[in-house]
Amino acid sequence: IMRFVMRVWMFLKKAWDLGVDEPRKFFHCLKVGVALMVVSLFYYMRPLYDGVGGSAIWAVMTVVVVFEYTVGGTLYKCLNRICATLLAGFLALGVHWVASHSGHQFEPFIMGTSLFILASATTFSRFIPVVKARFDYGCTIFILTYSLVSVSGYRVEHLLHVAHERISTIIIGTCLCIITSMLIFPVWAGTELHLLIPRNMDKLAKSLDCCVAEYFGHDDEESKKSSQGYKCVLNSKASEEAMENFARWEPAHGQFNFRHPWKKYLKIGASARSCAYCIETLTSCLDSKNQVPESLKNHLDSSCMNLSSSASRVIRELSTMICWSNHMTSFKDRRKHCKSS
Amino acid sequence: IMRFVMRVWMFLKKAWDLGVDEPRKFFHCLKVGVALMVVSLFYYMRPLYDGVGGSAIWAVMTVVVVFEYTVGGTLYKCLNRICATLLAGFLALGVHWVASHSGHQFEPFIMGTSLFILASATTFSRFIPVVKARFDYGCTIFILTYSLVSVSGYRVEHLLHVAHERISTIIIGTCLCIITSMLIFPVWAGTELHLLIPRNMDKLAKSLDCCVAEYFGHDDEESKKSSQGYKCVLNSKASEEAMENFARWEPAHGQFNFRHPWKKYLKIGASARSCAYCIETLTSCLDSKNQVPESLKNHLDSSCMNLSSSASRVIRELSTMICWSNHMTSFKDRRKHCKSS
Repeated sequence: IMRFVMRVWMFLKKAWDLGVDEPRKFFHCLKVGVALMVVSLFYYMRPLYDGVGGSAIWAVMTVVVVFEYTVGGTLYKCLNRICATLLAGFLALGVHWVASHSGHQFEPFIMGTSLFILASATTFSRFIPVVKARFDYGCTIFILTYSLVSVSGYRVEHLLHVAHERISTIIIGTCLCIITSMLIFPVWAGTELHLLIPRNMDKLAKSLDCCVAEYFGHDDEESKKSSQGYKCVLNSKASEEAMENFARWEPAHGQFNFRHPWKKYLKIGASARSCAYCIETLTSCLDSKNQVPESLKNHLDSSCMNLSSSASRVIRELSTMICWSNHMTSFKDRRKHCKSS
Repeated sequence: IMRFVMRVWMFLKKAWDLGVDEPRKFFHCLKVGVALMVVSLFYYMRPLYDGVGGSAIWAVMTVVVVFEYTVGGTLYKCLNRICATLLAGFLALGVHWVASHSGHQFEPFIMGTSLFILASATTFSRFIPVVKARFDYGCTIFILTYSLVSVSGYRVEHLLHVAHERISTIIIGTCLCIITSMLIFPVWAGTELHLLIPRNMDKLAKSLDCCVAEYFGHDDEESKKSSQGYKCVLNSKASEEAMENFARWEPAHGQFNFRHPWKKYLKIGASARSCAYCIETLTSCLDSKNQVPESLKNHLDSSCMNLSSSASRVIRELSTMICWSNHMTSFKDRRKHCKSS
């Protein structure tokens, strides 16, 4: 039992450290709570309840499912949800109208076949990378809404009324989510990406310095720690792509315009990663058994230190450039410079 | 308009190629369609409909949301959904019982506060990596169910009846999903992982051979193509981890026991990635402007070719070892061998 208590205690301590490190995550949780509270008011207050009826539950559901950490993520899910619901709803109503005019015994067959075809086709489209990146959630909602409307259309009489209520509650839910995530301590995916890339590059520069210094024996305690900084750059591709995907859904905010070239950040990220691969290879020399003789090391010492410090200076310069400017025109040649060095 | 038609045509052609390349993806789509058809029978057939009532819609919803490409993914979502629904349902009923015994005017406040606290806490727990990897979906469902039950508890009278219906429909939906995904052309995440790792290593070996051959001018047309094979290994971490995560939910199947050491595949994958980083660095030498003089190249030619071919042979041997054996005990030293070479 003591061990179990200890484990729970460690877990809670870790969670607390996480919250202290990034208070924005903590605020995010409060935001979710606030949004849920507000939306459940629709249930508790009589005038609001009379307005939307029993399907107020859909508004609650929308808030739970749609609310994401970044504004871009929330917008992506909201827009996907609204568009997919509308599209699938109208399509289902149309097919339902056709089916109901072709006799009661054919109705289930027509609805079932259309459901089968549309569900299979939409599921297949999710395997296509472009669709996967931008409309994955929308595809799920499309199948969901289509099957709900087409299936329940067979039993529920006031189909139009149900569809209208569902859509209005979804719009209420999504609006609430968008307002909460954009107005209370917003976390913009674009800004995150804009800060992440230079931070990664700074880490690279530091790692490069430390790694070379360690090889030639100029290292101290602190440098050993920071020489591992490049490791988080090695596998940054997935998170960078996710951020870029969310950033393109975001409206103009702060220093970023609507059509900010987010794609270019990915290119810089890729260059940073190839630098990180180099550093990984350099670091593996540290642990290698076949060491170069001391005399040769001493001979190369100063020139290598110079080379590494100038390379890391170029990376640092680039990262401050990215930090301070939004004019990405002259970046391309600088990136090349960085790569070759 | 012609351009638009062309683009749509290209898109469809790409999708068709995707389907031809991997017929299992095509089967997956059909499986989704079949599962949806079967579950919608609950609506169309009168005796079944009378059994579960209007909440048959939840069974349809479960199928749409829960069905994943791999068996592991489906099981992960199913188990998360059932456990989270049960947990949140009982908790909500308990809190509702307490709230309803403390007077009608306090009830909304108690329910609201508990909703706020639980939603915030659960959202926060999703930031913890362990929870994120294994119970992310469960957390969403937990908040969802708790808010649905607690909010609708205020208006719906037969709360127990509603809860019972919801849970039974969810169990119907998940069982259907599990049966469909496990019996009709199952795609096991574990098997995928078991095949992916050796395939990646073979690609590495081929790339290494081609890269060195190209450097010393022994290359032909075919080798240029396959020298890029290592690139897909560079960023394989995310997909490997996702597969490992799904694989641990899968029951014993084929040659794999229940407690198969899936974690070790990740270690091998990490070693393979560090090999890929090396090859990336080697490849960058090909395009470098500062080339070594020809005489030196000729001098090193045969020894380098020997080294690379023996290194790639070690990698290939390792990959066949992984392919054919499930005894992972003697892998560790071999991995080291591979790494140092």
